[in-house]
Amino acid sequence: MAELSEELAGGGKVEGSGLRTITREAALELRGYKHACHVMLHAPDPDSKLFGRIPLRHAVLMMMRFDGRLGFPGGFVDPEDVSLEDGLTRELTEEVGWGENLCPITEEDHLSCQVREHPQKMVTHFYAKQLTLEELSGIEVSATHAKEHGLEVMGMVRVPLFTMRDGSGGLPAFLSNHFIGNSRSQLLYGLRVLKLVREDKLWEATRASQGVR
Amino acid sequence: MAELSEELAGGGKVEGSGLRTITREAALELRGYKHACHVMLHAPDPDSKLFGRIPLRHAVLMMMRFDGRLGFPGGFVDPEDVSLEDGLTRELTEEVGWGENLCPITEEDHLSCQVREHPQKMVTHFYAKQLTLEELSGIEVSATHAKEHGLEVMGMVRVPLFTMRDGSGGLPAFLSNHFIGNSRSQLLYGLRVLKLVREDKLWEATRASQGVR
Repeated sequence: MAELSEELAGGGKVEGSGLRTITREAALELRGYKHACHVMLHAPDPDSKLFGRIPLRHAVLMMMRFDGRLGFPGGFVDPEDVSLEDGLTRELTEEVGWGENLCPITEEDHLSCQVREHPQKMVTHFYAKQLTLEELSGIEVSATHAKEHGLEVMGMVRVPLFTMRDGSGGLPAFLSNHFIGNSRSQLLYGLRVLKLVREDKLWEATRASQGVR
Repeated sequence: MAELSEELAGGGKVEGSGLRTITREAALELRGYKHACHVMLHAPDPDSKLFGRIPLRHAVLMMMRFDGRLGFPGGFVDPEDVSLEDGLTRELTEEVGWGENLCPITEEDHLSCQVREHPQKMVTHFYAKQLTLEELSGIEVSATHAKEHGLEVMGMVRVPLFTMRDGSGGLPAFLSNHFIGNSRSQLLYGLRVLKLVREDKLWEATRASQGVR
């Protein structure tokens, strides 16, 4: 259970993963590392109920990638990008049709940062951006027209945040899917620190996901 | 490997699953069974190349469901539905915004049919409908406005049909995700009989998916 606990904590050295959590400032001082930025787009959804009874509370976006794995939109920052956030916005434009009508992603939205040495020296930055439900729905539409639709992005999906009565349907089953890199940990971390799922529910769902198959 | 072979064959009794393959006619003569209809919407895509070099060849649609599992659009046929295909079309209208501009789904599109006794007496009908790429892209857009969007349907995704050089990215990793009921078998069956993936490639991807995690 130590590993599960570390995954939910999203801090310090994550045993076995080769990932270390550092600050954004420390990451920017590293030399010879590639930087990848990904973002969890989310919106409050206080009114929707599945089957008229399960409250959804929040909409959280991930995507099915070209390689058959789930992940967050984003990607590597190019050397010509002015900032991490500029690089992220460029990726979002290509992947989900991120528009200039939206409030820009800034340093304020930076949530966590992890560094690894193998197989290559790399820093993964994780952002979270709160939108209105209307804006988030707009992203789902614009994503179907984006440059990378049907190529790098096979489709946007919302994350079920509830656990059904059978104890596995919903978040536990979703977590048992195949995720790229540390995106599953990033999802859990984001849900926890933004309080989108209650901590005990998140713990239960993470534990239940290990027994889903 | 016997199980894998049966899964790809999609015929006869599938050992261990409790599913029997029967004809549509035999299924309609059964009494006291629920009928579920699902469809694989697909379209030729001869021009698109991932990273400018991996040909996509076909677009095939599945969806992320409310319960965190992948599946095909469709659902249970209601007693008031005039036919299986009427019931399927009603479900598609709610789930993906299926429009009257599209060629209707008919008996001709029925691909396979399986019956099971436990946990309930049920017949699963599997259809495949070829669209133009433009029509399929239209479904991806209309799905974001459909009644069940964000509720029963968390998003439409295209299935990567290729296998990347690492031997796991693409179809193998996709197949290692979590699927509802017999939808993974239905996907493999559909890809095989419609020749959307070459049989040896399909076999390799299915085998590779077992070692992806």
